Amino acid sequence: MTGTLFGLGIGPGDPELITLKAHAILTRVKVIAYPAPEHGESLARRIVAPHLPGTQREIAIRMPLDAARFPAREVYDEAAREIRAVLDAGEDVAALCEGDPFLYGSFAYLFARLASTHKVVVVPGVSSLTAAAAATGQPLALQRDVLTVIPAPLPDADIARRLEDSDSAAIMKLGRHLGRVRALLVALGLIERAWYIEHATMAAQKVLPLAHAPEAAPYFSLILITSKETPRL
Amino acid sequence: MTGTLFGLGIGPGDPELITLKAHAILTRVKVIAYPAPEHGESLARRIVAPHLPGTQREIAIRMPLDAARFPAREVYDEAAREIRAVLDAGEDVAALCEGDPFLYGSFAYLFARLASTHKVVVVPGVSSLTAAAAATGQPLALQRDVLTVIPAPLPDADIARRLEDSDSAAIMKLGRHLGRVRALLVALGLIERAWYIEHATMAAQKVLPLAHAPEAAPYFSLILITSKETPRL
Repeated sequence: MTGTLFGLGIGPGDPELITLKAHAILTRVKVIAYPAPEHGESLARRIVAPHLPGTQREIAIRMPLDAARFPAREVYDEAAREIRAVLDAGEDVAALCEGDPFLYGSFAYLFARLASTHKVVVVPGVSSLTAAAAATGQPLALQRDVLTVIPAPLPDADIARRLEDSDSAAIMKLGRHLGRVRALLVALGLIERAWYIEHATMAAQKVLPLAHAPEAAPYFSLILITSKETPRL
Repeated sequence: MTGTLFGLGIGPGDPELITLKAHAILTRVKVIAYPAPEHGESLARRIVAPHLPGTQREIAIRMPLDAARFPAREVYDEAAREIRAVLDAGEDVAALCEGDPFLYGSFAYLFARLASTHKVVVVPGVSSLTAAAAATGQPLALQRDVLTVIPAPLPDADIARRLEDSDSAAIMKLGRHLGRVRALLVALGLIERAWYIEHATMAAQKVLPLAHAPEAAPYFSLILITSKETPRL
């Protein structure tokens, strides 16, 4: 009997926003895996740290800064090899995923390497998308709203075209694209409806009208254009 | 001190997909409120039933079938009056919301009536969107995918235009629109990439290629067009 690989949605940051289901799996498995920087602490591991029994083997998937010398492909190949060996020995592995594993998650790279040969179960999690909406205190989408989720690295024209045909929107993976995207939203006349959210639900959470956002954004930040509908009934 | 109204995301259906945070609030408050049909069982209440202490006052927000004779507006006005009285007496109220409260949730109608005068805290939940993706076993959005969430009641042309400019998509609130939307996806050449998901994560869950979906869909069903990207690295 080979083990199961769990893609475990651990939620947006607040350790209490993990589900009962993910919590039960997290504390039961003998091996956990998680993305991490080349040096230092893994955000995913930090989110679940209060729940860890302290007896588990940990596989840190460390992404080197110098992608030219050591490509991410090789990092995931190596992580998949290590996880495969555990599964083949009959043990389950929980791969920790910030937010939800299938919504822009790096879990897809493990999934692509292991799902055709091993049992993989995905446990959905609370996404930063709705966690950020809760932080703004504004409904994200209502009734017949069309909601578009747009990665910030896309070219201006691609972002603008989708925004112009959406009622609500989220612009994800902001990071170094903040300045450019903010200028675009000013040009489109959307700046007044836009929120900037950084580290939603974490201690370091920032929620600001986009017009008042800082100059530099971390990778875990996003812009929301919340529903323009007033809930009508 | 007036009480707090919690908009409590209880997740897509599996009682274990509630968060630790929502669970703690759910079991602590003395009053819960939830949407319900005119007669019979509330789905939201059924989802959390295994967790209820059995000692709480319950406010069922019952939606009459005959909206002409008794408009939904009056139902929410009355529910808001009842909840306001509890809050003003200093007690907290947890309003149960399937999925996430700010993602197409009917919680918006309570929010609109109470947020300007009372403390309202929204606890985000696992959405049926990502729960359905987990059920298909396919990543919903990857890397630079644009994901569009579209309510099925929109006219064909509005749905088609958004689908033609999206990488991944979800068509929500399917219900009686299933036949029409399926025909549209055939016409757009998208039927092969489309999944039909009904009652995601519940005992009655159905997950099928849309081409093999039943003729009639319940309200809690949706179509997903998952990422066409193979995760590349």
